[in-house]
Amino acid sequence: MNVKLIEANDEDLELIMAWRSNELIYRFFAKQKAPLSWEEHFNFWTHRKDRIDWMIVLEDEKTKDRKVGTANVSELNTPYPTLGLLIGEIPLWSKGVGTTALLKVLDYLKSKGYEGAKGWVDEKNLASQRFNDKCGLKRDKNQDIADKIKYVIKF
Amino acid sequence: MNVKLIEANDEDLELIMAWRSNELIYRFFAKQKAPLSWEEHFNFWTHRKDRIDWMIVLEDEKTKDRKVGTANVSELNTPYPTLGLLIGEIPLWSKGVGTTALLKVLDYLKSKGYEGAKGWVDEKNLASQRFNDKCGLKRDKNQDIADKIKYVIKF
Repeated sequence: MNVKLIEANDEDLELIMAWRSNELIYRFFAKQKAPLSWEEHFNFWTHRKDRIDWMIVLEDEKTKDRKVGTANVSELNTPYPTLGLLIGEIPLWSKGVGTTALLKVLDYLKSKGYEGAKGWVDEKNLASQRFNDKCGLKRDKNQDIADKIKYVIKF
Repeated sequence: MNVKLIEANDEDLELIMAWRSNELIYRFFAKQKAPLSWEEHFNFWTHRKDRIDWMIVLEDEKTKDRKVGTANVSELNTPYPTLGLLIGEIPLWSKGVGTTALLKVLDYLKSKGYEGAKGWVDEKNLASQRFNDKCGLKRDKNQDIADKIKYVIKF
């Protein structure tokens, strides 16, 4: 499974929005209860700070390399940035693409000298909890957001 | 509402797949009952014949021009090619983008000397039926597919 992270740019916005507008994906997002609007999405994108977004590219010799999801780190101005990741190509869930991508994100943060990383998962989202457990993230003692499980990893 | 049609290419496949994998969009497709698989989508794409696919691009000076849907004509080897159209950016439904795009597709077919065009709409899909009625398509006397309404337009 060859996976690359390529920094996202304006040309990727429609694809990211299409993924985030799928109920199978947004049903676990804290605030979003409907497909995204372009204005909301574009506004978020142009105002984001201390954050990197990547496209997760799956290499595929039989067909073509393709974008299958997106990963991000935010709060890059803190010692424990926040992780975010989604696999937009739904039939690829649980096939290891997310794991490979997340390990690359963690490697990036390590290489930049961060102390660790953190993330939150909806308490109903058992698949993401299994994913975080498998990737070596630990449930934090300090659970600070209702209905969410906080994870932390120390490098 | 400035809308352009740009012929789709391999780089658009992920976005088209993401739209077609949204239940709000595929629920009226005859055969599809779940998100598309890449292999199925890529196989369809590379084997299509007598067909053109366009990306529907909405010009937007305030943010950026963006891809909001896809239109196609198939059976281009017949006098009445088959129309297909979807607006992938769901909050744009019923805002006139599809109408403008379909009129451009019909202009294209006229300019190429076709006699007309046809299309089918799920009988539960009232929005698409209103759309077709508004665009000047007529319900055909010969209703040939179960649970579908056949439309025809003569140039």
